[in-house]
Amino acid sequence: MTEQKKNSGRLGVWLVGARGAISTCVTYGLAGLVEGLIEPVGLCTETDSLKALELVGLEDIVLGGCDICTRSLAESAGELEQQGVLPSALVAATAASAAAYEARIVPGLLDQSEGAPVAADPESERLGALPVKEQIEAIGAALESFKEETGVTRVIVVNLASSEGQRETPDSWSSLAAFEAAVEAGEAQPSSVLYAYAALKAGYPFINFTPSAGSSIPALRELALERGVAHAGSDGKTGETLVKTVLAPMFSGRALKVLAWQGYNMLGNRDGQVLEDPGHKAAKLHNKDQVLRELLQDDELHTQVAIDLVPSLNDWKTAWDYIHFEGFLGAKMSLQFTWQGSDSALAAPLVLDLVRLVDEAANRGTAGALDHLACFFKAPLNGGTHDFHAQHDRLLTYAAKS
Amino acid sequence: MTEQKKNSGRLGVWLVGARGAISTCVTYGLAGLVEGLIEPVGLCTETDSLKALELVGLEDIVLGGCDICTRSLAESAGELEQQGVLPSALVAATAASAAAYEARIVPGLLDQSEGAPVAADPESERLGALPVKEQIEAIGAALESFKEETGVTRVIVVNLASSEGQRETPDSWSSLAAFEAAVEAGEAQPSSVLYAYAALKAGYPFINFTPSAGSSIPALRELALERGVAHAGSDGKTGETLVKTVLAPMFSGRALKVLAWQGYNMLGNRDGQVLEDPGHKAAKLHNKDQVLRELLQDDELHTQVAIDLVPSLNDWKTAWDYIHFEGFLGAKMSLQFTWQGSDSALAAPLVLDLVRLVDEAANRGTAGALDHLACFFKAPLNGGTHDFHAQHDRLLTYAAKS
Amino acid sequence: MTEQKKNSGRLGVWLVGARGAISTCVTYGLAGLVEGLIEPVGLCTETDSLKALELVGLEDIVLGGCDICTRSLAESAGELEQQGVLPSALVAATAASAAAYEARIVPGLLDQSEGAPVAADPESERLGALPVKEQIEAIGAALESFKEETGVTRVIVVNLASSEGQRETPDSWSSLAAFEAAVEAGEAQPSSVLYAYAALKAGYPFINFTPSAGSSIPALRELALERGVAHAGSDGKTGETLVKTVLAPMFSGRALKVLAWQGYNMLGNRDGQVLEDPGHKAAKLHNKDQVLRELLQDDELHTQVAIDLVPSLNDWKTAWDYIHFEGFLGAKMSLQFTWQGSDSALAAPLVLDLVRLVDEAANRGTAGALDHLACFFKAPLNGGTHDFHAQHDRLLTYAAKS
Amino acid sequence: MTEQKKNSGRLGVWLVGARGAISTCVTYGLAGLVEGLIEPVGLCTETDSLKALELVGLEDIVLGGCDICTRSLAESAGELEQQGVLPSALVAATAASAAAYEARIVPGLLDQSEGAPVAADPESERLGALPVKEQIEAIGAALESFKEETGVTRVIVVNLASSEGQRETPDSWSSLAAFEAAVEAGEAQPSSVLYAYAALKAGYPFINFTPSAGSSIPALRELALERGVAHAGSDGKTGETLVKTVLAPMFSGRALKVLAWQGYNMLGNRDGQVLEDPGHKAAKLHNKDQVLRELLQDDELHTQVAIDLVPSLNDWKTAWDYIHFEGFLGAKMSLQFTWQGSDSALAAPLVLDLVRLVDEAANRGTAGALDHLACFFKAPLNGGTHDFHAQHDRLLTYAAKS
Repeated sequence: MTEQKKNSGRLGVWLVGARGAISTCVTYGLAGLVEGLIEPVGLCTETDSLKALELVGLEDIVLGGCDICTRSLAESAGELEQQGVLPSALVAATAASAAAYEARIVPGLLDQSEGAPVAADPESERLGALPVKEQIEAIGAALESFKEETGVTRVIVVNLASSEGQRETPDSWSSLAAFEAAVEAGEAQPSSVLYAYAALKAGYPFINFTPSAGSSIPALRELALERGVAHAGSDGKTGETLVKTVLAPMFSGRALKVLAWQGYNMLGNRDGQVLEDPGHKAAKLHNKDQVLRELLQDDELHTQVAIDLVPSLNDWKTAWDYIHFEGFLGAKMSLQFTWQGSDSALAAPLVLDLVRLVDEAANRGTAGALDHLACFFKAPLNGGTHDFHAQHDRLLTYAAKS
Repeated sequence: MTEQKKNSGRLGVWLVGARGAISTCVTYGLAGLVEGLIEPVGLCTETDSLKALELVGLEDIVLGGCDICTRSLAESAGELEQQGVLPSALVAATAASAAAYEARIVPGLLDQSEGAPVAADPESERLGALPVKEQIEAIGAALESFKEETGVTRVIVVNLASSEGQRETPDSWSSLAAFEAAVEAGEAQPSSVLYAYAALKAGYPFINFTPSAGSSIPALRELALERGVAHAGSDGKTGETLVKTVLAPMFSGRALKVLAWQGYNMLGNRDGQVLEDPGHKAAKLHNKDQVLRELLQDDELHTQVAIDLVPSLNDWKTAWDYIHFEGFLGAKMSLQFTWQGSDSALAAPLVLDLVRLVDEAANRGTAGALDHLACFFKAPLNGGTHDFHAQHDRLLTYAAKS
Repeated sequence: MTEQKKNSGRLGVWLVGARGAISTCVTYGLAGLVEGLIEPVGLCTETDSLKALELVGLEDIVLGGCDICTRSLAESAGELEQQGVLPSALVAATAASAAAYEARIVPGLLDQSEGAPVAADPESERLGALPVKEQIEAIGAALESFKEETGVTRVIVVNLASSEGQRETPDSWSSLAAFEAAVEAGEAQPSSVLYAYAALKAGYPFINFTPSAGSSIPALRELALERGVAHAGSDGKTGETLVKTVLAPMFSGRALKVLAWQGYNMLGNRDGQVLEDPGHKAAKLHNKDQVLRELLQDDELHTQVAIDLVPSLNDWKTAWDYIHFEGFLGAKMSLQFTWQGSDSALAAPLVLDLVRLVDEAANRGTAGALDHLACFFKAPLNGGTHDFHAQHDRLLTYAAKS
Repeated sequence: MTEQKKNSGRLGVWLVGARGAISTCVTYGLAGLVEGLIEPVGLCTETDSLKALELVGLEDIVLGGCDICTRSLAESAGELEQQGVLPSALVAATAASAAAYEARIVPGLLDQSEGAPVAADPESERLGALPVKEQIEAIGAALESFKEETGVTRVIVVNLASSEGQRETPDSWSSLAAFEAAVEAGEAQPSSVLYAYAALKAGYPFINFTPSAGSSIPALRELALERGVAHAGSDGKTGETLVKTVLAPMFSGRALKVLAWQGYNMLGNRDGQVLEDPGHKAAKLHNKDQVLRELLQDDELHTQVAIDLVPSLNDWKTAWDYIHFEGFLGAKMSLQFTWQGSDSALAAPLVLDLVRLVDEAANRGTAGALDHLACFFKAPLNGGTHDFHAQHDRLLTYAAKS
């Protein structure tokens, strides 16, 4: 069968932000799964409901990627160990696999408009200062080297880098032609867009797990269709927003009137540090905010989302939501919840699920933004309801039909 | 059209526990809706999604019922006003309608095995002491009087009385023949069963909003089918359990492993007083408990539900749930929520919704337990998933097909 | 005894913001207490611990005051009734007393730098536009009229108006001479300062229940001592901050290390609307924030306080605090609390307590800022610990010594 | 000076339950403190406020003890490491010190009426089956060996064993004479009482960190006074009860009326397993319950405390308290809190504090139950207020006077 054929050989997964917290969890977690050291908790693709799909085996995934910091993987792992996210035993047992992965990490593009991170890689600074055209070529070359050196039959690029600041939408994003002209003319572009362009151009699917622009701009949607490549995004739905998109339909389903929905998020990891900047916070808040107005079909809804940096919490995102609602007879009621979870441990299995599901769709020859993966994102590329159950049903229906 | 014809004329709704808190909210709330004094918040049957159905108009519902206490409706209303559930202005504005309703309330059956309530009605005590056969006849007669005096074209009986204690299942419940023989022989039966029998026997649909036995026993399911009558139950899903059946599928959908789910309910109304007794609490706890094991497909799940009487909370049920779960890499996380709602204001609109939806199904000639109403109950008569979203989808599908 | 003598006759209490939510609760609550309609819950001065003090009888308090809005007391009361704060029966039963009070309310000073409120009183606008010297005279005259017309033997002025925006401290506040020169020169002053000046000048104690400047500026502290008048403030400690100042000493007392203390406040009343403006919020946040650094003796403490307007909550302030702390062996732990209380019902009894306690001190001839009343304020005039228990102990010690 | 003299030499601390979770934290924590590997977070005796006291140096404390299980210290430590309580680095760095400690652990008394634990030590079973008189002699001998072998100048015995079941108070507890006669006659006694008797008889102070009887019975109070030995107890105040005794005085101090105080505790460690048994839970609940009635001076207070076993939480006690209260005007308000802390990491520093403070008092020649240590206990031996602030003040006053 053709699907089986396409599925044959190993799959290369190229992580942007390859030594960040999520990538670190993906790396050690994948090794742990393959070696049978941990249970596949958090992985939908290992449950019965998605079994019917022809998914790449976890043992056939080869990780690589790029990063703009020189901080080592061991340092990242050490932090996550101390925070109680990564088990020390797992880190010790999978050290060889992690070392092999780290050897495959190359310098990324340091986006000058984003400001340099701590321990910025000089080579990344050099690359980021090149004309955009050359930046794209550099990524393209890195992807080819990764493919060649690992012998994988196909590659998927996943954006796990820090959220980019929100910017004005340039005219050049409106079409592929305009975008390519702008690239020729040297117009600066956010790194996430450059990675997405390079990937799609090379015929590699792109997954945007962040709220950054990535492949969501019209020019790149066009490119994906033209090249027949699948892509998915944006902004992984891991914690508080997930709960929101599960609870909000309950209020609609019971005709209860939500008067106010306040959400307070606290986190202390690198993501939290980046989000301290109002410009970077804006995109994330927009995605978090929008879901409620859609789900509750109330444009006047009083809703507010805050994200505050609380360093001591590090990776342990803690969120409190207060939902004030009205019932029959005007009676005012409330539901409040506190969510406490490790952001990276929540994100990592979704990355593995997405990689396998995007690969599956690509192997079938599906092109463009993937509808059936909306349940994984805060801002699904093709829109549609934010209702998690409805989104999840769509995934199950897709799997059942296969 | 036949449906329209059946739907013509007014619908009589006979409430068992007619002066209790839920009935009081149903009464004043219905009057307020009909007179345009309150918004239909909490009523699914007034939303677009159920519009396609041929539902009885709210103005065409005539309430009546029975109670075993002599406490007046004004007293019930006064309590709910003081508790901030019933708006004083509404009570004042709909006094005439309430008085007319109260005039239609007759003595109920005081079940001797349940123990007498405060302000027990002597006539209810007398009725409850009669041989069961005569008790059934008394209810039957009361229903006929109600129908005749109000001129309604059809009647639905709704059980809103206090939860009955859990008892051993007698052999006589296994078939209609055995049940009727037992009745002839004078075998005592819970009141909820007698009301259900009398209703179904007369060809009137029965709705069991409580965890009591009601029409759920095999004998009465047989009767319903034999007589071609619709019925629905059991145990209205109003608050904490509703939230549970919305959240639990999220954990499954994300392959997160729930380690423990503890639920602590506090309430202070008459329902809470009745539930102080371990025997009465048992049925309710069973229904609350069962949903999680099914939804999480984990028979070993550590789960516990407590219901404690806290008099000062009166009708304002407050529940705290703590969900301990494991994510990827063995990371332990938690979600906790506090629900604060008026139990009666949550239940009352569901009663109105159920009455209209059962009437709609009955008018179509549907007999037996109604599958499409599972979303309203903690223990749906025909079982099926407890997933609120899936249950609600079934209702919407039913409505869309109509 | 002289004290008894001074205590003789009735006490006039002149409320600035006389038709606001707190004043409305003070008015109806006082009437209810005097007429025996409500219990003295929330009133420390009615407990055994303060019995030894020679306090004015509640029946000997005569209320008056000023306001800058034309909104009637009935309107304020109606809102609080609907919000479940003021019992309707109490409002009905004390209507005569409320009407008499309202007749004693005169126009206040509309501070032009604050922006006009909804339903601004034209006469207040006129007064607020006068040269400051004349504004002071106007207040002075109003206080004298109040005293004369009511026949009270002494007057206390209480600031219950909305929080003023934070401003630069002018040089003129540094001494009484400089202040009076500035007044002569027509330098604009916040209304709270003008009320305080007029009160103290007339020899009347001043209580500042808000975070506004009031009598806290050096010039007026000097005036109070010169004139031998008592005063107290600032910013009533009613809810979340009260809990903070009770919990923080627990962590110190157990040598536990607080890593972060996040406080999120939501409220929907007029106070909340005023605090939506960052300038007005600043003073309140400063007071709320400062207490923790002092109590935990950690200038580096990561702490954050937010106040958000959630209109549907109206007077029901809801606050969530998350305290992240470290114990032995570096173990990270947490305490989180949700506070839900009616802001006005919490403030009103403190106003009555303060009035009686300030009057008691004044009758003894105490001048200047009152140390022993620190437990009532977020920012006690004379500083000292914010530890509620220590502050309360000081009040009990004062009472015990009397 | 005499105090200094008595304080000279090293102090032996003999832990009953020497390989339990608290003892394990005490052992590794003490080693870590002495070697400068961890900060003294959670230790009051290392804060400025208690500096004036002549406390034994941490480096001069020698630990020993007994246990009834054969489970090794390494196993206990491993569990606590995995639970994120004990840092792995600390365990590794202090292995030698831990091994030396473990070598000093001898078999304890297995109380037959308590039921045998998992991995019960056969020698402990043999000892527990001896006539009580011989059991006492065995403990006495063990204590002497410990003193001799370690060369310490004095010994303190600390009960850290699991809570004992609540029993009828025998007549023999009423006086020392009666008790000793009963011992002669072979009357069975709870182990905690035998340890306390042996310690006090030998002139060694006894600290009861559990709700078991220990030295609290009249016979042993008499013995302590007769022998001039200090003792302290009962039931360490570590978590939820600590918060209760801090918050309850706030309500009294503001004259707010507590309507209900519900406390739900969940834990999963050995303590939780023991407390699953209603008999064992009773003593703990009594202590937790009693504090509120005293603090709120309301014998009618509606209060309830639950302790539920939730295995997945292991050492991480999680408690939710809901406090329903009434303010001015009858307004109903609430405060709820969630406490999440490692029970053992909270208890261990209190044990070290207690040992040093009891030693200090003993060195001064203080005999009997120590009043100034009430702040450490849920049920202080000499009673008095449960108000943590007042208790803590007493300790500070004691320290300041020294």
